[in-house]
Amino acid sequence: MACIAIDCMGGDTGIDVTLPAAKSFLEHHPSAQVVLVGDESAISSHVVGKILLSRASVKLVHAPQTVAMDEAPASAVKNKRQSSMRFAIEQVKSGAADACLSAGNTGALMATARLVLRTVPGIDRPAIATDLPNQLGGATLMLDLGANVDCTAEHLLQFGVMGSALARAMKGISSPSIGLLNIGEEVIKGNEIVKQAAELLRASELNFQGNVEGNDVFKGTVDVVVCDGFVGNVALKTTEGVAQMLAAMIKQEFSRDWLSKAMALVALPVLKRFKKRVDHRRYNGAALIGLNGIVFKSHGSADAYAFEHALSRAFEAAEHDLIGQITQSIASLQSSLAPLPLTPIDKLIVNA
Amino acid sequence: MACIAIDCMGGDTGIDVTLPAAKSFLEHHPSAQVVLVGDESAISSHVVGKILLSRASVKLVHAPQTVAMDEAPASAVKNKRQSSMRFAIEQVKSGAADACLSAGNTGALMATARLVLRTVPGIDRPAIATDLPNQLGGATLMLDLGANVDCTAEHLLQFGVMGSALARAMKGISSPSIGLLNIGEEVIKGNEIVKQAAELLRASELNFQGNVEGNDVFKGTVDVVVCDGFVGNVALKTTEGVAQMLAAMIKQEFSRDWLSKAMALVALPVLKRFKKRVDHRRYNGAALIGLNGIVFKSHGSADAYAFEHALSRAFEAAEHDLIGQITQSIASLQSSLAPLPLTPIDKLIVNA
Repeated sequence: MACIAIDCMGGDTGIDVTLPAAKSFLEHHPSAQVVLVGDESAISSHVVGKILLSRASVKLVHAPQTVAMDEAPASAVKNKRQSSMRFAIEQVKSGAADACLSAGNTGALMATARLVLRTVPGIDRPAIATDLPNQLGGATLMLDLGANVDCTAEHLLQFGVMGSALARAMKGISSPSIGLLNIGEEVIKGNEIVKQAAELLRASELNFQGNVEGNDVFKGTVDVVVCDGFVGNVALKTTEGVAQMLAAMIKQEFSRDWLSKAMALVALPVLKRFKKRVDHRRYNGAALIGLNGIVFKSHGSADAYAFEHALSRAFEAAEHDLIGQITQSIASLQSSLAPLPLTPIDKLIVNA
Repeated sequence: MACIAIDCMGGDTGIDVTLPAAKSFLEHHPSAQVVLVGDESAISSHVVGKILLSRASVKLVHAPQTVAMDEAPASAVKNKRQSSMRFAIEQVKSGAADACLSAGNTGALMATARLVLRTVPGIDRPAIATDLPNQLGGATLMLDLGANVDCTAEHLLQFGVMGSALARAMKGISSPSIGLLNIGEEVIKGNEIVKQAAELLRASELNFQGNVEGNDVFKGTVDVVVCDGFVGNVALKTTEGVAQMLAAMIKQEFSRDWLSKAMALVALPVLKRFKKRVDHRRYNGAALIGLNGIVFKSHGSADAYAFEHALSRAFEAAEHDLIGQITQSIASLQSSLAPLPLTPIDKLIVNA
């Protein structure tokens, strides 16, 4: 009976995506509850909003402000104390909701979530983690994907701890295998920070398998791939770019002339199955991990189908008691972790 | 009438790949000349070697040593002074060849090439550059792809200068557009080095278009994408991984049952066209750029088809007088460049 708080105003589209997604999500998860957070008049006058609000499993929390997609995190933290994003996170803080989801500005979501929920003891900075499909038919968990761009070796170790805990909680893997993203060239075998991180991971109690390369993510070599947020974000965007290009090329080849088009018609069922299988919308929903509460992030440009997938992920995380499991995992790995000095953005949040 | 020196012993397969590739290359480029560098008895007793050596356009240079694929660069530089790799590079140094190609160990090739050929004035470290296909039907030049993993902002600027010069020389683009690989998250917008590099690139005379993201490589947003070797290598390997996974998935979907197999048969001509278009072997052949001589690197696992593509690239670079054009470009951009302190591997090479 988990309850999910939805930042209805976040993302490129807002309520025209979030409300239909919530409706469909509740139809697929009859036991779930949702809190719609956002502009009361906009939601209650929306055709889907009306239907939702007539249900016992749906509540509305009015939030007079909205965080803009391009707003600086520090500005959102300081000036948008009554935003739908912040109120959704506060639903988790107060216990009114078990998890929250926003398609809003990632930086603002991360900063606000850190301020409101604080990090789990032993974790300095939260990370963004998501599943990527692999050749084994499963998924590889990858983190960080952009929350932390200047990482120390200790941060990478913490990502390993969090990734291991997340894979354990969400997938039931008892000892998830961890790989450190590195490069295969013999030149120097990775930069200095990655080399140090490998030492720390090796000395930890994690099931560390050593270095992996970019292609291992999709081979499914390990359960969890750890990298800094810069590299992770580039890898993620590169993946999107390659997949889009290949999809466009298939389309072009099948529409080149009338014969190709006829072949496409014949092969349509297979092509549709393939398209569904590689549909990135099915992988929407990244976890902001390391916080005292479940926060999920949807792609800003998600449509209702994609947003519903992210809702399902947040719901599953709540049902699996993600935070309890993670706190326990981190406590058991505590000996591997040491506190780190604060960065300017840390100080901003700690002192806010 | 360009002449290419081939390290026949390099790569996972050696002469069984390099010799057939050389034969096919010469059939497609009747004006070209090649120098086969490697073990004389192995080459001259090989069935394809015999055919090649009977031609006027083919010479043989005996090299008693071979660099192992997993050999440390410093060891190769020090202990393999008579390797096929080094002798191939020395053919370029002496002017006997206009370019050389090796499928051997990247680190050893880079270190040996730096030692023998030295870098162009104004360039501290060579970079590895290659073309990646984009949605526009063209290719995006990307560098560095793994030669330099701990880069300063000044190195990234130098990669911009070299990438611009390479695109100008090889593709005839008068003022190639340059993008700096970064991440789109609002959190911090890139790490410190990338932020500094953007300032340097903006102040230079290059046609700098600002930041690009991982997916822009495949969109074809700019002619040249600049990044450090760690990020570039991860992006490249990620690309390979995604493409392989998608290819495997298409295959799986088209062989799931007899009906799908029948559909595959019908659609075969289109599927083959698609396969050919995305065949990574057609993009084999990376330039080691910034040296006083043309050195190309083939993928170690290249087959003869892929190795021949790399040979064609090296040949084109020689025909376009790549080094002359690059030296000129770099001289004209010299005002943007300042010398950098030497790293331990720099010192090793400079003092060798």
